[in-house]
Amino acid sequence: MKSSLAKFSSLALVAGLAGCSRNEQPNIVLFLIDDLGWLDTSVAFGEEVYPFNLRHDTPNIAALAESGATMTSAYVCPVSTPTRTSIMSGMNAAHTRITNYTSVNKDWNPDATDTPSEQLDDVVERTDWNINGVTPSSEPLEHSVQITPYPQILKDNGYYTIHVGKGHWAPNGTLAANPLNMGFCVNVAGQVAGKPRSYYGEENYGNTSEKWNFFSVQNMSEYYGTETHLTEALTLEALKTLDYPIDNGIPFYLNLCHHAVHTPIHRDPRFFQKYVDRGMDEGQARFASMCEGMDKSLGDLVAYLDKRGVLDNTIIIFMSDNGGNSENLSKGGVRHTQNSPLREGKASCYEAGVRVPMVVYWKGKVAAGTRINTPVVAEDIYPTLLEMAGIDDYQTVQPIDGKSIVRLLTKGSKAVRRAMDNGTITNQKQANTFRIAEEISGIDPEREVLSHYPHQWKPYQLYDIDYMSSLRKGDWKIVYRHREQTLELYNIAQDVSERHNLAQSNPEKLREMADALTAKLEGYDALLPTFRATGSRVPMPNQLIK
Amino acid sequence: MKSSLAKFSSLALVAGLAGCSRNEQPNIVLFLIDDLGWLDTSVAFGEEVYPFNLRHDTPNIAALAESGATMTSAYVCPVSTPTRTSIMSGMNAAHTRITNYTSVNKDWNPDATDTPSEQLDDVVERTDWNINGVTPSSEPLEHSVQITPYPQILKDNGYYTIHVGKGHWAPNGTLAANPLNMGFCVNVAGQVAGKPRSYYGEENYGNTSEKWNFFSVQNMSEYYGTETHLTEALTLEALKTLDYPIDNGIPFYLNLCHHAVHTPIHRDPRFFQKYVDRGMDEGQARFASMCEGMDKSLGDLVAYLDKRGVLDNTIIIFMSDNGGNSENLSKGGVRHTQNSPLREGKASCYEAGVRVPMVVYWKGKVAAGTRINTPVVAEDIYPTLLEMAGIDDYQTVQPIDGKSIVRLLTKGSKAVRRAMDNGTITNQKQANTFRIAEEISGIDPEREVLSHYPHQWKPYQLYDIDYMSSLRKGDWKIVYRHREQTLELYNIAQDVSERHNLAQSNPEKLREMADALTAKLEGYDALLPTFRATGSRVPMPNQLIK
Repeated sequence: MKSSLAKFSSLALVAGLAGCSRNEQPNIVLFLIDDLGWLDTSVAFGEEVYPFNLRHDTPNIAALAESGATMTSAYVCPVSTPTRTSIMSGMNAAHTRITNYTSVNKDWNPDATDTPSEQLDDVVERTDWNINGVTPSSEPLEHSVQITPYPQILKDNGYYTIHVGKGHWAPNGTLAANPLNMGFCVNVAGQVAGKPRSYYGEENYGNTSEKWNFFSVQNMSEYYGTETHLTEALTLEALKTLDYPIDNGIPFYLNLCHHAVHTPIHRDPRFFQKYVDRGMDEGQARFASMCEGMDKSLGDLVAYLDKRGVLDNTIIIFMSDNGGNSENLSKGGVRHTQNSPLREGKASCYEAGVRVPMVVYWKGKVAAGTRINTPVVAEDIYPTLLEMAGIDDYQTVQPIDGKSIVRLLTKGSKAVRRAMDNGTITNQKQANTFRIAEEISGIDPEREVLSHYPHQWKPYQLYDIDYMSSLRKGDWKIVYRHREQTLELYNIAQDVSERHNLAQSNPEKLREMADALTAKLEGYDALLPTFRATGSRVPMPNQLIK
Repeated sequence: MKSSLAKFSSLALVAGLAGCSRNEQPNIVLFLIDDLGWLDTSVAFGEEVYPFNLRHDTPNIAALAESGATMTSAYVCPVSTPTRTSIMSGMNAAHTRITNYTSVNKDWNPDATDTPSEQLDDVVERTDWNINGVTPSSEPLEHSVQITPYPQILKDNGYYTIHVGKGHWAPNGTLAANPLNMGFCVNVAGQVAGKPRSYYGEENYGNTSEKWNFFSVQNMSEYYGTETHLTEALTLEALKTLDYPIDNGIPFYLNLCHHAVHTPIHRDPRFFQKYVDRGMDEGQARFASMCEGMDKSLGDLVAYLDKRGVLDNTIIIFMSDNGGNSENLSKGGVRHTQNSPLREGKASCYEAGVRVPMVVYWKGKVAAGTRINTPVVAEDIYPTLLEMAGIDDYQTVQPIDGKSIVRLLTKGSKAVRRAMDNGTITNQKQANTFRIAEEISGIDPEREVLSHYPHQWKPYQLYDIDYMSSLRKGDWKIVYRHREQTLELYNIAQDVSERHNLAQSNPEKLREMADALTAKLEGYDALLPTFRATGSRVPMPNQLIK
């Protein structure tokens, strides 16, 4: 299946430059991985190949990158639900006020850990966020935001819309618990849980009387008692759902949302032993096998689309829903260094929490083997998918915060390719330092990227994963730590690891960035936590500057 | 929604007689109820309205009957899986050798109770039946029968195929555990269980850590914690799945398989109090509310099809998968009289076990308000649905035992209508004694109807629900009791209750029927149990006659 893409890879540029277009609506696949870090694949999203890029074999993602565009600055939210609801709504998470992951229980959040002040002598109280996630209804639902999900618009425009895998848009007992209410024609295993009870067919994916809970995966009974890893099972089911639209020439949208590589870290038997043989311990080999398992899923999908003759007309967007988990030791070493050289990981507003792998394949439209550095954000997916589908006339009940990145992907990637061909860029890596694509993309390369996580992630306090907001703008990034009431300033272009706080040395830029972050939070009417002692709200960042 | 059918009811005859036809492929709904007895609705399938017909309000089924054909002699298998796999395969259950209900566990049958000889000092050993149900694969599966399911043929011919509700074609860990392997594009809640853990949204349909088992219903998380009865939830989900094909003008096949009215007998809150107010006790009111709940589902479906403008072009087949349960007291009274005047109930080869309600609505094709007496059997559904869909060129890996009843439904019902109009039949009930429809239907009114249940149903022995085979042919029926090694002969036309055994008084007919039953069993290579004492197989029925 690697060959499926390889053979298109060399043709894609030619077709792309020739500007050949099809009248047919393209098929679209959003291939969304859970907790996959920026360094967890062999694709170098950074300016160099870092050691962590060499740990896991991901040939299919590499092939996709060779055939499409590598988005080096893709930003999502620090945890799952905010990203997933941001994608579904086209809104920034600060705007939806869905800033943490939803519980399986409506109106209640026992398994989320944003109430630390009752357990610990903290100075910060929880925010009153939308714990019931999104709702597709015109009926209001308390602690929820009403949206028109884009799959509904795709469906209303003739697309056959398929959801497979993790949902996590809302709790049980709400409309968004059910993908059929979110505009999907087909649902396989989409439910409210943020992770699977088990990845193992031998454990029925958690469906045993001893092990069952709301995280047990549904619709998988075919594989009970077999050695089929959940990643493979979801892939096999996804391919089955494609036959109807392909057989009948109907454009499809496949929302393939793997639970991998989220905890529990359960070995994929197809790849586990290989990593043990490389000297990894049990936990590392499990995680590595899960990463290669999801890569295999992408390869199997591409091969199937090719076999069915629709690969040329299928857009594939590969991305992760948040950064890699730095609290476990799935890659060995030391906690909080799991995404090195990026700082921290999942649930943090530092780069490793919010900057994720992203690759877009679109034959003839996206120039193969290009790198695009303009920041793209989760809420861009909504308008982008609709523009890709050729739908420009639609109504939504919610405001759309994201921008379509279609021109960035098409004209932008081709501009990068031309620069590579005419010698402006002499190698791929250099492309990362140019802003060629952006000039004609309609997307401001200096656009502001807001991250907002007004929560404590775990029942215990973590220093770098905590109540936090941040804004990236161009090379600069400001980080606002709510608990400590401090502001930090980094030059991401020069210091991707966020180790050199320039707040003291560059007060002008700090003030400018504090104002920008404040304006963004105020513009979205973002929720901030309150001080426990005083009951007053945490101030806006610009109030911290005298 | 009653009015939806009412307004068509009066038009249907005219349209029918005019022989108007549409070129479009019709939509088809198989509305399959579980354990609904012949007397459990207000439609009189017998020659008179019996007391049990007056217990439950089922106005929507009555409206369907007024708008379509009432099949007075519809026969299925004594229990669920044999009927459901017979429908899926087009084969008689004696031929599939799937003669009992499948367990949730592959290769194992702990919850089925066909091993009584180890518990009781019985004379009969279990049969080696296909405990793994059907399999849609060309790969053999032990204790399973390979089939081409008709939904696959419908799908291959452009139909949008939807499964909602109970599957029960095979155990966990097999292909047929998954409706997506059976030719369905969409699956909602289709799984291996023969009943739901709970009908109550308040109990999450069994999805609670205390209550969970394989009978807990999947895909219903939207309704967790609400008062939505499972029958209503499945209906709401089914209607959602119809939007895609209706919006896009695609013919659909909806396999709407309610768990109702199978145990557990859980009140439908929409109707429960009404029956309490009529003086029923708790259990009776619960059952009555479940019957009216499934009737409401039919009404809601009809109303929705009407609202969407597709009712005229949608065929609806209403039927039950086996006879009413006579071992519980859901209708009060005395055990084993719950289907009076029919003898016994579910799991028996006496009439109440195998004769079920069936109504077919097909505007313009089936003359409204007619009664058709020719026996139809579960395995007829397969070729019938394909002929209804206009598909006459298809391949199957299995032999098809059933016959298409399309001409019986169309020409037959119109012949009945003509006879009613020209005075040959002076009232509806009389129609039940005529064989007008059959003359031009291509279906022999004297066709043989085999029932075969070589099992003990419960862990305890029941006299009339036990190892048994039977054959109806015209007015006559022979019953072969394996354990007792006796033959009984009934004239069903004169003795629908099977109370007057004519075996002694009519040895000629007995021999003829024993030969016919033997030929049928041999023709299907049916499995018979063995005597525990000798290890030899139970003899064929004609061997019992000297």
